[in-house]
Amino acid sequence: MTALIYCPFPDAATAERLGGQLLAENLIGCINIGGPIRSLFCWQGEMGAGEEIPALIKTDASLLDRAVTRLEALHPYDTPAIMGWRCDSAGSGTAQ
Amino acid sequence: MTALIYCPFPDAATAERLGGQLLAENLIGCINIGGPIRSLFCWQGEMGAGEEIPALIKTDASLLDRAVTRLEALHPYDTPAIMGWRCDSAGSGTAQ
Amino acid sequence: MTALIYCPFPDAATAERLGGQLLAENLIGCINIGGPIRSLFCWQGEMGAGEEIPALIKTDASLLDRAVTRLEALHPYDTPAIMGWRCDSAGSGTAQ
Repeated sequence: MTALIYCPFPDAATAERLGGQLLAENLIGCINIGGPIRSLFCWQGEMGAGEEIPALIKTDASLLDRAVTRLEALHPYDTPAIMGWRCDSAGSGTAQ
Repeated sequence: MTALIYCPFPDAATAERLGGQLLAENLIGCINIGGPIRSLFCWQGEMGAGEEIPALIKTDASLLDRAVTRLEALHPYDTPAIMGWRCDSAGSGTAQ
Repeated sequence: MTALIYCPFPDAATAERLGGQLLAENLIGCINIGGPIRSLFCWQGEMGAGEEIPALIKTDASLLDRAVTRLEALHPYDTPAIMGWRCDSAGSGTAQ
């Protein structure tokens, strides 16, 4: 079954580069890179805000943990927000 | 309980047409159609890229499989990426 | 473990204000506010459409229900669509 990963990136070029890397390593099936988002967050007790580029990544449930771990290693942030979840239903052509 | 479906479309007009069809068939409660995304993918061993229109669809968990199957039948791609998951929490007014 | 909440807002200012409120109340870790979406929906048997602002909110699974309930109380719609789900995998730095 399919799984999805959501992760914001600092910019589109980084999202494309890391998405291409994960594709080349056969850890994901595709990455959808969106338009700019405005992010508000609380970090070490301080409110902050910034602009990021969101990406939604399709992978297989059996690869989810490995893809999240590899993306974290590649991501330029010290503590990137990387969130994955298994799907309950998918089109027959959706599997990797 | 509510469920969500994520699906990229070739363009906004197709997303609206198919979303309207699923609404008319009472298979979904709403469709949110986003701005353009850049998609990178690996298909039959070949890397590819393109522009798509993402949509997030709200339905009921009891209708999830039927909505995914119907969307796949309507979608213009041969193997569309259609991914659905059940929610664990929802506003009281969110149910269809 | 991390959890995500998806919620459309009437505009970006409302999304920022309510996101800031939930951050100040330590109910969420961050909010990602996207560009405009076109929403099609069926409400009390009538088809409708409109423009909204989507937001994806990161919280902790232990706070998910409280964050959804509080967001519903703050949201300007009578019956806002607020959908939350627990993640199955997250980067080590992703937890709140």
